[in-house]
Amino acid sequence: MHSLRFTAETSSEGVVERDFTVGDVPGVLWSPAPGPGLPGPGRAPLVLMGHGGGTHKKAPAMAGRARLLVTGCGFHVAVIDAPGHGDRPRTAHDEREIAVMRRTMAAGEPVGPIVVRYNAHLAERAVPEWRAALDALQELPEIGADGPVGYFGLNMGTAIGVPLTAVEPRITAAVLGMFWHDPLAETAKRITVPVEFVLQWDDEHIPRRSGLALFDAFASAEKTLHVNAGGHKEVPRFEAESAVRFFARHLGHATTPPA
Amino acid sequence: MHSLRFTAETSSEGVVERDFTVGDVPGVLWSPAPGPGLPGPGRAPLVLMGHGGGTHKKAPAMAGRARLLVTGCGFHVAVIDAPGHGDRPRTAHDEREIAVMRRTMAAGEPVGPIVVRYNAHLAERAVPEWRAALDALQELPEIGADGPVGYFGLNMGTAIGVPLTAVEPRITAAVLGMFWHDPLAETAKRITVPVEFVLQWDDEHIPRRSGLALFDAFASAEKTLHVNAGGHKEVPRFEAESAVRFFARHLGHATTPPA
Repeated sequence: MHSLRFTAETSSEGVVERDFTVGDVPGVLWSPAPGPGLPGPGRAPLVLMGHGGGTHKKAPAMAGRARLLVTGCGFHVAVIDAPGHGDRPRTAHDEREIAVMRRTMAAGEPVGPIVVRYNAHLAERAVPEWRAALDALQELPEIGADGPVGYFGLNMGTAIGVPLTAVEPRITAAVLGMFWHDPLAETAKRITVPVEFVLQWDDEHIPRRSGLALFDAFASAEKTLHVNAGGHKEVPRFEAESAVRFFARHLGHATTPPA
Repeated sequence: MHSLRFTAETSSEGVVERDFTVGDVPGVLWSPAPGPGLPGPGRAPLVLMGHGGGTHKKAPAMAGRARLLVTGCGFHVAVIDAPGHGDRPRTAHDEREIAVMRRTMAAGEPVGPIVVRYNAHLAERAVPEWRAALDALQELPEIGADGPVGYFGLNMGTAIGVPLTAVEPRITAAVLGMFWHDPLAETAKRITVPVEFVLQWDDEHIPRRSGLALFDAFASAEKTLHVNAGGHKEVPRFEAESAVRFFARHLGHATTPPA
């Protein structure tokens, strides 16, 4: 197994940002900054975040959600670049699929079938990478091997997050959404942890019926669906705040060492 | 028009509770208690709350939501007893419908058609009562004629709230849910204010498709659907907190007089 290697560190407004690698997979870990009057390096829950297709580990949506989770709950937040994304090389297969996707979009044709196919391929590569990253992250004393772990990812982050959550018993709560049911519903039936699921009512890519069918598939006794009016890219900002409250409810609070 | 008459006042943990009547309709107004270090009688937004069928203006769900809105936002909250409910007399028609409903429930038969029919009848009586109560409430200096007004009601509170919100331009945001689409969808199409809509995914009375169709009917550009796993009576407590945040977003904040 690969250990986690930190490669850079910056700090801004209460949040420490550390770049890392696990094997050849680059990631970023956001954590609460210690400071005067702030708790020391107590253990805190960890939220894994999966980025969307075509973006990367430090995309604004990732950094913004991480800041909410770190400053609002004192949690750690880790994102790794998905295969073929961010600082990672693309395979010939990646290049071909991306070219097909671009041609389809340019032609104004439905991109769903290609996204579904390519994301299923990426998920097969990403799930073991996430599990290795989680092994390495849990070796850090501020995270630990037995602390609560959540997963938060929409779009491609759900294409990867559903199979990851289904096989990874360390993940005990997940915020997911914005994906088609066909490739994921059978896997979602194996998920029993609390789920908050996000959809857009007027999504131009994902039919309502398909998104609702994926929500329906989760076996979780506790599951919540949030749907907002608007198109695929118009998820309201308050859904990120809702996700933070969801993780605060289900992962508990950061702990500090006894005084 | 009838003025508002206060008939009783108590105060507990930061909330003043005043019973009132408008004509022969009894109601309750919950408001922030003044106190040392607390703002004086500045104007604050008003939330009208409609109670569920078979309950009344001071049912625990009403008092609990009112406390969240008063202590969390500094808002005023008013509830009036629906016709035939709480401290109000029942007509012969009320008695007949209630008897039919009880027999249907005791026989284990679907109660939906009777609830729909009886609630439509009650809404016809309740909408003008609500409008008169709002006229009277807005004469109070701590509410005022031009302040923001919201409406919050599920179940029968939605059967009354949809036609009320459709005809009452003073209501600028509404939390609704838990009702069948057939009797309300046409009216909901006339509603354009922001709506948060609540459903239960496993509701034993309201079919999923019917609840989703009612959400779909609202013409509001801003609308949010919250669905939770569980039966008709299992709406999670955090939905009340979500409603409070919704009203805080859309009705603004309580104002205090200039120092």
